[in-house]
Amino acid sequence: MSIDTRPLTELANHDDFLQRHNGPSRQDVARMLEALDAPSIGALVDKTIPDDIRLRGELNLDGPRGESESLDYLRGLARQNKVFKSYIGQGYHPTHLPAVIQRNVLENPGWYTAYTPYQPEIAQGRLEGLLNFQQMVMDLTGMPIANASLLDEATAAAEAMALCRRANKKHKSERFFVADDVLPQTLDVLRTRAAYLGFELIVGPLEALAEADVFGALLQYPGVSGEIHPLETAIATAKGNGVMTCVAADLLGLVLLKEPGAMGADIVFGNSQRFGVPMGYGGPHAAYFATSDALKRSLPGRVIGVSKDSRGRPALRMAMQTREQHIRREKATSNICTAQALLANIAGFYAVYHGAEGLRTIAARVHRLTTLLADGLTRQGIALKHDTWFDTLTLVGVDTHRIQGRALTREINLRYPADGEVGVSLSETTTAADLGELFDVLIGEEHGLSVSELDREALAGDSSGIPTAYRRASEFLTHPNFQRFRSETEMLRYLKRLENRDLSLTHAMIPLGSCTMKLNATSEMIPITWPEFASIHPFAPNDQVTGYRQMITELSDFLTEITGYDSISMQPNSGAQGEYAGLVAIRRYQAAVGQDERDICLIPSSAHGTNPASAAMAQMKVVVVECDREGNIDIADLQAKASQHRDTLSAIMLTYPSTHGVFEANIRQACQIVHDNGGQVYIDGANMNAQVGLCRPGDYGGDVSHLNLHKTFCIPHGGGGPGMGPIGVKAHLAPHLPNHVMTPQDGIEPDSGAVSAAAYGSASILPISWAYIKMMGARGLREATELAILNANYVAKRLEGHFDVLYRGANGTVAHECILDMRPLKAASGISEEDIAKRLMDYGFHAPTMSFPVAGTLMVEPTESESLYELDRFCEAMIAIRREIGRVESGEWDKTANPLVMAPHTMSDLMDAEWSRPYSRELGAFPSEAVRDAKVWPAVNRVDNVFGDRNLICSCPPIDAYRDA
Amino acid sequence: MSIDTRPLTELANHDDFLQRHNGPSRQDVARMLEALDAPSIGALVDKTIPDDIRLRGELNLDGPRGESESLDYLRGLARQNKVFKSYIGQGYHPTHLPAVIQRNVLENPGWYTAYTPYQPEIAQGRLEGLLNFQQMVMDLTGMPIANASLLDEATAAAEAMALCRRANKKHKSERFFVADDVLPQTLDVLRTRAAYLGFELIVGPLEALAEADVFGALLQYPGVSGEIHPLETAIATAKGNGVMTCVAADLLGLVLLKEPGAMGADIVFGNSQRFGVPMGYGGPHAAYFATSDALKRSLPGRVIGVSKDSRGRPALRMAMQTREQHIRREKATSNICTAQALLANIAGFYAVYHGAEGLRTIAARVHRLTTLLADGLTRQGIALKHDTWFDTLTLVGVDTHRIQGRALTREINLRYPADGEVGVSLSETTTAADLGELFDVLIGEEHGLSVSELDREALAGDSSGIPTAYRRASEFLTHPNFQRFRSETEMLRYLKRLENRDLSLTHAMIPLGSCTMKLNATSEMIPITWPEFASIHPFAPNDQVTGYRQMITELSDFLTEITGYDSISMQPNSGAQGEYAGLVAIRRYQAAVGQDERDICLIPSSAHGTNPASAAMAQMKVVVVECDREGNIDIADLQAKASQHRDTLSAIMLTYPSTHGVFEANIRQACQIVHDNGGQVYIDGANMNAQVGLCRPGDYGGDVSHLNLHKTFCIPHGGGGPGMGPIGVKAHLAPHLPNHVMTPQDGIEPDSGAVSAAAYGSASILPISWAYIKMMGARGLREATELAILNANYVAKRLEGHFDVLYRGANGTVAHECILDMRPLKAASGISEEDIAKRLMDYGFHAPTMSFPVAGTLMVEPTESESLYELDRFCEAMIAIRREIGRVESGEWDKTANPLVMAPHTMSDLMDAEWSRPYSRELGAFPSEAVRDAKVWPAVNRVDNVFGDRNLICSCPPIDAYRDA
Repeated sequence: MSIDTRPLTELANHDDFLQRHNGPSRQDVARMLEALDAPSIGALVDKTIPDDIRLRGELNLDGPRGESESLDYLRGLARQNKVFKSYIGQGYHPTHLPAVIQRNVLENPGWYTAYTPYQPEIAQGRLEGLLNFQQMVMDLTGMPIANASLLDEATAAAEAMALCRRANKKHKSERFFVADDVLPQTLDVLRTRAAYLGFELIVGPLEALAEADVFGALLQYPGVSGEIHPLETAIATAKGNGVMTCVAADLLGLVLLKEPGAMGADIVFGNSQRFGVPMGYGGPHAAYFATSDALKRSLPGRVIGVSKDSRGRPALRMAMQTREQHIRREKATSNICTAQALLANIAGFYAVYHGAEGLRTIAARVHRLTTLLADGLTRQGIALKHDTWFDTLTLVGVDTHRIQGRALTREINLRYPADGEVGVSLSETTTAADLGELFDVLIGEEHGLSVSELDREALAGDSSGIPTAYRRASEFLTHPNFQRFRSETEMLRYLKRLENRDLSLTHAMIPLGSCTMKLNATSEMIPITWPEFASIHPFAPNDQVTGYRQMITELSDFLTEITGYDSISMQPNSGAQGEYAGLVAIRRYQAAVGQDERDICLIPSSAHGTNPASAAMAQMKVVVVECDREGNIDIADLQAKASQHRDTLSAIMLTYPSTHGVFEANIRQACQIVHDNGGQVYIDGANMNAQVGLCRPGDYGGDVSHLNLHKTFCIPHGGGGPGMGPIGVKAHLAPHLPNHVMTPQDGIEPDSGAVSAAAYGSASILPISWAYIKMMGARGLREATELAILNANYVAKRLEGHFDVLYRGANGTVAHECILDMRPLKAASGISEEDIAKRLMDYGFHAPTMSFPVAGTLMVEPTESESLYELDRFCEAMIAIRREIGRVESGEWDKTANPLVMAPHTMSDLMDAEWSRPYSRELGAFPSEAVRDAKVWPAVNRVDNVFGDRNLICSCPPIDAYRDA
Repeated sequence: MSIDTRPLTELANHDDFLQRHNGPSRQDVARMLEALDAPSIGALVDKTIPDDIRLRGELNLDGPRGESESLDYLRGLARQNKVFKSYIGQGYHPTHLPAVIQRNVLENPGWYTAYTPYQPEIAQGRLEGLLNFQQMVMDLTGMPIANASLLDEATAAAEAMALCRRANKKHKSERFFVADDVLPQTLDVLRTRAAYLGFELIVGPLEALAEADVFGALLQYPGVSGEIHPLETAIATAKGNGVMTCVAADLLGLVLLKEPGAMGADIVFGNSQRFGVPMGYGGPHAAYFATSDALKRSLPGRVIGVSKDSRGRPALRMAMQTREQHIRREKATSNICTAQALLANIAGFYAVYHGAEGLRTIAARVHRLTTLLADGLTRQGIALKHDTWFDTLTLVGVDTHRIQGRALTREINLRYPADGEVGVSLSETTTAADLGELFDVLIGEEHGLSVSELDREALAGDSSGIPTAYRRASEFLTHPNFQRFRSETEMLRYLKRLENRDLSLTHAMIPLGSCTMKLNATSEMIPITWPEFASIHPFAPNDQVTGYRQMITELSDFLTEITGYDSISMQPNSGAQGEYAGLVAIRRYQAAVGQDERDICLIPSSAHGTNPASAAMAQMKVVVVECDREGNIDIADLQAKASQHRDTLSAIMLTYPSTHGVFEANIRQACQIVHDNGGQVYIDGANMNAQVGLCRPGDYGGDVSHLNLHKTFCIPHGGGGPGMGPIGVKAHLAPHLPNHVMTPQDGIEPDSGAVSAAAYGSASILPISWAYIKMMGARGLREATELAILNANYVAKRLEGHFDVLYRGANGTVAHECILDMRPLKAASGISEEDIAKRLMDYGFHAPTMSFPVAGTLMVEPTESESLYELDRFCEAMIAIRREIGRVESGEWDKTANPLVMAPHTMSDLMDAEWSRPYSRELGAFPSEAVRDAKVWPAVNRVDNVFGDRNLICSCPPIDAYRDA
């Protein structure tokens, strides 16, 4: 054997990561190509992607860079951020994420690589975590039902407003009241949303609500400047006037404050960030959302409910999965899809770990320090804006400039709402020593105050900023889940126990079509918990976030190069929000050029349900374009509809490659038709993983696209969020991207309202996508796309003769996913796609996407990260299942007693003393050799959805419920 | 409910961590005291610990400090360390720990909280990892057998020397040859060890070996200065002379170099650190150790072997568990106990992830860069000491001072072996850019060399520092385990699959008596992977490690306060090594005061097997002191033996509380007797967890103790290491603590030889113990000890009437553990302690310590970290098992067919179509309610130890072996 003599350029081994990210080895690729009878990957791609849209040459990107090299660079950027102590408040607070939760949830792929729990039998762990979250929200708000999180507080406010309108149809007003001490970023998002829903916002002091002719009202509790309003009367009066009330409440404040549920609020929502989730320069965090019982079936977002399984035992599941946009499509007023499951779980676990007693200690300490601060300030003659407070004070009549100077010197950030005013919000992390430092800053070092003396006197006087009548009187977190796991050992075991109930990418391929469950590499994840990224307030001054800004700029540059667009907005927090932001940009642009009348949105019949909902929210009228038998857009119909609406055509929304998993040959022509008729082209980026490095939406006709960073660009799905849906636009739309009241953006119209609470959405997870692109480089990204296409075609090939692939492209290939048609099998055997999905669990797999976009089908997307070993394992499982179906077809097995309809099999099944089924225990639970090596047991038997929907229970069940069953 | 009004001192909430570390809540404690009929914990402790040794008042320690506060402080210390680029070499090299391994092994409690795999049925995951490690070592060294790691390269060298002597009895010489280019720290340890084994070291050039009259020889490959010797002839000549040869080899070098196994070496050993394990200022790292077939049954340390389970399937286990010290006790020449399982696993996984191809790329790159460096230097007229090299060059005739100055300016560390000489060792992390920088430093910036030009020319000339005859010609890592897991996705799944086969503290209590399996808190673990601790070479200059030094000083101060000693040495890497270092300190002290003749070591019959082995290694003669029926030292016998040997009495080795789990009442008296007879008192600190804050060995008579930081002070067991065994001594022994050739210690005799390769042992894990003590503070540590005693007494109480507790103290209490006597049950039913241990797995528990210190018993140590919930769960399992034994006793169940002798139950058992056992499947696998909620499945049925020992296979079995079974 000779010493390696490759040329120096490879000495650096920059490209190691490519081989780690991609599943198939070079030998695997050769074998797969042989199976496909394709001479090369290039040839396969040439057959798959229309020639007239192909990118010539490689993307112009730096890299690939090695993992260490990339992390070193990113560490350098991180060091440019300045981690100041934040007293800014305004909805975001420093917090202590318990280390046991950080390491074992946030940094643990067992938690972060899981998908949304659509398959509850292998998701009971995170479902229980989310149920804890809901229970915590219900307890703290005093409301009877809560969902499992929304994207952020500001968009939750917008959802609340829309829900009021839907639920309060009697009220004829189209006006919505907003208390004038609402968080400014919330108002910014409300303005955007109201504009296209046709609502008028009435912003005024709480007192004005009684006289306002509005369908609903939003109150902040406590207000942004710290005041605690006596909401009870206001809410009662509003109710009397037929006005629904929404309360945006601080979750930690609710520990001490009278809960809005006890005051008659219809909707309570807010941010759960300060329950252990890092500020992260804006996100991701989980907003919470709770309603009265009357509104429970209109709750936006996902709700976890308690049902039972086929053995009658309690089993959790997502209740009311069919959301607004699926039911109402183009009449929808909500397009929420992604939630913030990972962050909701963290916030819920924070409550589990602290329990009521711990939360009380934390909240009381924060409040007591705030009271001492108020005492000290007033003694020194500084006036406070309000005489009530929980954790926030606003100083008035002070020398803002001088205070700010002193604060910056000490690396402290305060809030400066107006000249002469300074806001201070304390948090869990504030210490007595910090208080002394705050006196130095706010008063000047000559203040002569002693914190401990103040404290002694305060204790004597039972001083508090919460009037007795406003104090909480009810218990909370009384369920055993909030009492048992208080030692780290118990907590650790609880977290591991829940983790081990769930199937994630750590166990097996999750071949969910359209979801792109690819590798979330560890090196991509490491930076997000560095303090220099995690501990930054979203409204920190620009000169403290130069590292963040640089990283965001670089990522934007990467994405513009990848998409062929001119400008990127990182603001949208999900794909759906990206769609909305993109359509709003189109509308703003058309308004700016005097084409206000353009409001028709063409949408192919194959579109994702979110598309028409987003269009509706942007006040567009949806016109459906038909598809032909092959699933492609009917060009003639498109031409006809576009011409018919040429005077009012606003846009078309296309997904490319289509939701049918095919690169339609005439995409360029379709875009041209729309442009010729005065419309804009929105390309849904959900399937971008089939395009990167091979073709660019900006090149073949797109004006705007959203990118799901949590699909193509490796942000993990987190068990149901976070996501990120930045949008790319052509230059003419750039001035109409969302701006932000707290963080004005260069080159964007000042009145372009926000769509998210934070200017860069969930900024703290952007390093994931940055690292992915940097470590892959142009060649790596292209190869990944090619392998994603190769893997999908290999699966389609291997399953040939067993299942029908529903759609193929012009040359017989599929794109990065393929739709398997189960309808003929169901007709022949009675075995449904759901039975197959459940049976796959016995084989150790998560099901493919079910019945989207075509009912009765399974859509398989393997991604480039799966190895040939795993693809074969999956295909063999599918083929084995097909044989099992054959035994039902042939009558060998009864239609009601076979391993398919009785799937999934649990440990309990095997314990049955009597085994009267026509197949063995072994065939039930260990149908394949591979399962023996690494069995993933479904925690419950098949969950009864109908029972769950009929008996909606969305709180933690009593322990006895499990025991009885 | 009123606002919390506790005084300000609690505002900081410093004591949060106490409640997290300790399992029982305040309510739990009350309930447990009630069960024990004890009025308070204080009263229980008063009954348990002899009054005359009680510490009056609280320890004088800072704290408790909160978790964030402590981490912030530690981060400040870390920042004082300077992470320079290291080219020092000398056995330690920078390396890239793959992120997927870092996060999912090193930072994952599922891996690091496991115990040594004594219970193989629930340890197949880490056993496979360790088998990979062995296979990797065998492949790279070319030897037929390897162990699963030793503490470090230097102590492995000492083991090799001792093994040569044991195995080469024919040779009459007591001399051992050491090549003069051995690593200096290895020679330091060899000198210490040789002195007390009675060997003379002959240090000389390799050429001198042929003429040396020695029983064995140690050769470094390549030598410390980089030369690659042609070992083949030297080894053959030695063999002809009846001399055994040991080769200390660089593992990465072996990728390219001819393997010592092919050259006839008897023993090959070295450090596996550069396979992904951070340098960590000295450790922990796994040394490897491989031998010829002839020596396989004399291998020191642990060896993983392949056996079969009761269903005939392949199953891994520790082969040859009964180590040297257990078999030979006071005749032993090895006392090895702890290994470095976690680090061996990491190194093994590094090889799994890279495979042969990846390792070749890495090694070839390192070598090629070294060759370019050599080319550049010689072109500029700089002379090199040798004309062969792998990764290390030594420059001669250079201006050392000037080079050092330039290097420090650029934050670079080089090796400076002598005036006029500079050593440079390259590593995996070295880049072409680094090479340019090295030219700047070594030559001066005016060098005018171009790395890429050099490279082009080198390629043309096929330049290499490895002569053709020295190159490796054989394949390695051909087993599928080193080929399949090359994408991060596959690797992640492999790691998780192995993790999920094992029971660790993340699942359940591990009630191993004398092992103190307490919480390893996340906050304690976080700092160890910070680069400022992880990326420091052990021989970095002192001014680059002020943070490390400060942390070590503080920890030493904590430990002297806790133990009542005057001085601490952090050097010993395990308890056994601590014992050895302590005894050597005694011998050195006695020699210094002219009492060389003192060589008698008294050891009670109840002692751990390591004690007599350590004494033997310190060239002491062991005299056994008898115990009385209650298990206490027979004071009369002690008095008699001490008097009898008063002229030659060196020391006594005591464990306190005793290995019987009892605070013997007369400990003070026992110490006094020894002192009165001129001896020193060694208190084994294994049971320190029963004493911290309540009594101190330094107060009641100890002169020296080792502390198992991996027991009492929270370093995790890592699945069988790392450990740390620092020793505390009284002032008179302090000058005789181990010194270190590379890092001379203040206040220690210059000729006090080392016992470990690095001056502070495994420095990078010391932050764990530091953080534990800081976060607990004096009160917390005392409370933990009290709770450890309470928990043990609670268990003893709950099991009363079911099992006999073998030993109790004077007032009927036990210390922190209790011994349950299974012998009566075995006599009555035939059910052995092993059956009970295996049956506990079905209940979800790891067995207590079996048959130590008394055969036929189980020793239970719950530690303070277990909650009442878990204690009850364990006790209920034990009671249920007792009932099951009753059914065997009564004849209801056959002695050969019952759930005890057939335990543990696996998934395979349940799949059996026929179930002819006299109990149900459910009773077999789900004997308790708690198991339903969180089943931990044993991966294999009961492992056949006899078969495994008879058919010793210590390499990875072919995949077919699993398939056939």
